[in-house]
Amino acid sequence: MRQSQLFTKTRKEAPKDEVAKNAQLLIRAGYIYKEMAGVYAYMPLGLRVMNNIIRVIREEMDAIGGQEIFLTALQDKKVWEKTGRWSESVLDIWFKSELKNGSQVGLGITHEEPVTNLMRDYIHSYRDLPRYAYQFQTKFRNEERAKSGIMRSREFIMKDLYSFSKDQKEHDVFYEKAKQAYVKIFQRLGLGERTYVTFASGGSFSKYSHEFQTVTDAGEDLVYVHEGKKIAVNKEVLTDEVLKDLGVKREDLVEKKAVEVGNIFSLGTKFSDAYELCFVSEDGTKKPVIMGSYGIGPGRVMGTIVETLSDANGIVWPEEVAPFRLHLVSLGKPGSDAEKAAVDLYSELSKLGVEVLFDDRDLRPGEKFADSDLIGIPLRAVISDKTLAMGGALELKERKTGAVSMVTKEELKNRLMR
Amino acid sequence: MRQSQLFTKTRKEAPKDEVAKNAQLLIRAGYIYKEMAGVYAYMPLGLRVMNNIIRVIREEMDAIGGQEIFLTALQDKKVWEKTGRWSESVLDIWFKSELKNGSQVGLGITHEEPVTNLMRDYIHSYRDLPRYAYQFQTKFRNEERAKSGIMRSREFIMKDLYSFSKDQKEHDVFYEKAKQAYVKIFQRLGLGERTYVTFASGGSFSKYSHEFQTVTDAGEDLVYVHEGKKIAVNKEVLTDEVLKDLGVKREDLVEKKAVEVGNIFSLGTKFSDAYELCFVSEDGTKKPVIMGSYGIGPGRVMGTIVETLSDANGIVWPEEVAPFRLHLVSLGKPGSDAEKAAVDLYSELSKLGVEVLFDDRDLRPGEKFADSDLIGIPLRAVISDKTLAMGGALELKERKTGAVSMVTKEELKNRLMR
Repeated sequence: MRQSQLFTKTRKEAPKDEVAKNAQLLIRAGYIYKEMAGVYAYMPLGLRVMNNIIRVIREEMDAIGGQEIFLTALQDKKVWEKTGRWSESVLDIWFKSELKNGSQVGLGITHEEPVTNLMRDYIHSYRDLPRYAYQFQTKFRNEERAKSGIMRSREFIMKDLYSFSKDQKEHDVFYEKAKQAYVKIFQRLGLGERTYVTFASGGSFSKYSHEFQTVTDAGEDLVYVHEGKKIAVNKEVLTDEVLKDLGVKREDLVEKKAVEVGNIFSLGTKFSDAYELCFVSEDGTKKPVIMGSYGIGPGRVMGTIVETLSDANGIVWPEEVAPFRLHLVSLGKPGSDAEKAAVDLYSELSKLGVEVLFDDRDLRPGEKFADSDLIGIPLRAVISDKTLAMGGALELKERKTGAVSMVTKEELKNRLMR
Repeated sequence: MRQSQLFTKTRKEAPKDEVAKNAQLLIRAGYIYKEMAGVYAYMPLGLRVMNNIIRVIREEMDAIGGQEIFLTALQDKKVWEKTGRWSESVLDIWFKSELKNGSQVGLGITHEEPVTNLMRDYIHSYRDLPRYAYQFQTKFRNEERAKSGIMRSREFIMKDLYSFSKDQKEHDVFYEKAKQAYVKIFQRLGLGERTYVTFASGGSFSKYSHEFQTVTDAGEDLVYVHEGKKIAVNKEVLTDEVLKDLGVKREDLVEKKAVEVGNIFSLGTKFSDAYELCFVSEDGTKKPVIMGSYGIGPGRVMGTIVETLSDANGIVWPEEVAPFRLHLVSLGKPGSDAEKAAVDLYSELSKLGVEVLFDDRDLRPGEKFADSDLIGIPLRAVISDKTLAMGGALELKERKTGAVSMVTKEELKNRLMR
């Protein structure tokens, strides 16, 4: 896309009331727009990043047998009363409203209740199991404070998968698969090194749940990291018994601030009991379905990437997440050979299916480079009269390392087509 | 996908309180689930159809220069008060809620207000124009009654595009382009023949707006169709002056019930005046931006397709919309040659990237055929011991026409790879 056509642009300043680094940078670079405290719109660049994150998560969920659905934001009071979570004293972050006839509705905070209720229509026999349903759905949480930018907002897209299994063994096998899929997702999203499988409390049906905690000073959680084992322990389960269980010594743990980018949870029969979600097993007896839930917030992931990987000049996107593969910057004046060469290269790469942001604006080089660093596309190619004079070469710069090299057009194409 | 793995299944009966034909069929065929009156979840098949409709619309919006964004559902009272539409006496279908600090928020019914307000950050000069921003966003409308299934629901995805132009001429050119894009969209979605560009009232800034009305008895609107010109007139503008304007005679118009599947509207400076959305023109003067809005509801389109194209046996999807290209039905018993041939063909086609729903279930042929008709995939291929005995052929049936033919595997592949 031509940058002159892109309707959002970089800004020198973020809104004064914006205190989170992730939102400040994303607003300044033109990715998001602050609608209200804790409520952000995604501009064309931001939506591209969001869709890349969603694509990676979707691929990994499909790979473990997930089937995508799309539940509703509006929630039925009657459905939620069955678990008691309609009450504000149990879940205190509801947005509620009402229909014209006066009956109350809520906005979905999470979807264990409706998905369990819904599955009663589709699960009757052991032949209907296991089932893994997931969605990308806007969730609404009436957070008291909203100071973490898109890492904790009042409205956000969440991927939530729910597993329905015949027995504990079938559940455990899938739970482990989901855990490995999550590890892979955070690796692909560029957060692998800083993200720890974290042991947290498991509720009534399992000893542990697992959080995926990314270490960052912007995090609101405290975790205890074991570097050697690449695991962490949540404060809530930091007991001698658990340490023994995990085979780690307290003195090897380091306290770190972290943000929870994902979590997986064994639900046992908590919800299937509440909704009588049962199936007829092979021996003819009626049994409750064993459930699990598996969440990731793509917006929170995006915010966490910005918090952890940006530098003084701006954002540094990992490859799979970046809004474009290449930032092509033309320094040629209108009508110059350099400008023509840049336009040619842009259309050649576009034809090859390479996603390029082409800075065709008539601005000083310094401004273009500053914008390019702020926007954070992994590779930048500069064409100028100077580079053309060097045998038609391009100056290639890696955003992450700052490494600069001169390459030919063919070398660039080979690199991008890999 | 193997039908034995698909977690939703067909049902004999729709819920008793469901009165709309579209929702009855879609629920029975396993596409949607009724969460509450006017609130529907999309199951795997339904989401595939929805995504196909969204893809077609997105392609056509991109083709006329649209840039995709993603605004917010939560709406700021302060923003909406500027046009007066926060008031229930002006817009009576709000869902409203409140933040913990007591301030009111609304759920987006439409997005003219926030998008105009937002654009003040991005439009300053004539160089920033024109701009065309669109989104697929969940809208919430607190409808008094909700009896039309997914054709009028309380929560639904809408594509809304907003145009921002320098002057009336630039606006008019885009408006016409958008109109043609809409014509193309409804053709691609299989509604072309029954959908009429309909002249409706234009508000303060233009003589007409244009609705896209699909003729169906399930429609809530009355339009006056001129078959020869392939246009229609909305009742609200059915005057002698307008008829003269359009060059049609009253006696050539036929009254029909119809559903509004899209609309396009010139907004003039109504919203840019309210938000002082101005730009500095080439002559240095400050001018208000000229706006337009362009809506399509993919869910309503899906409902309208079901209402208009289904037959006594079930749904009949147009090709671009269908959840799969082919319904492959194996009648072979487990272990039979027919079953093996079906599995082979399924994996061959899958490798070629053809999307196939493979009915591998151990059911009677009659049940499989009834399900297949109900689900409505355009092409059905049957493999049985009988078809195998006829030189390895398949029985191919077109859902729309009922035409049956015997084809070889190669012929089928050629047809699907076209």
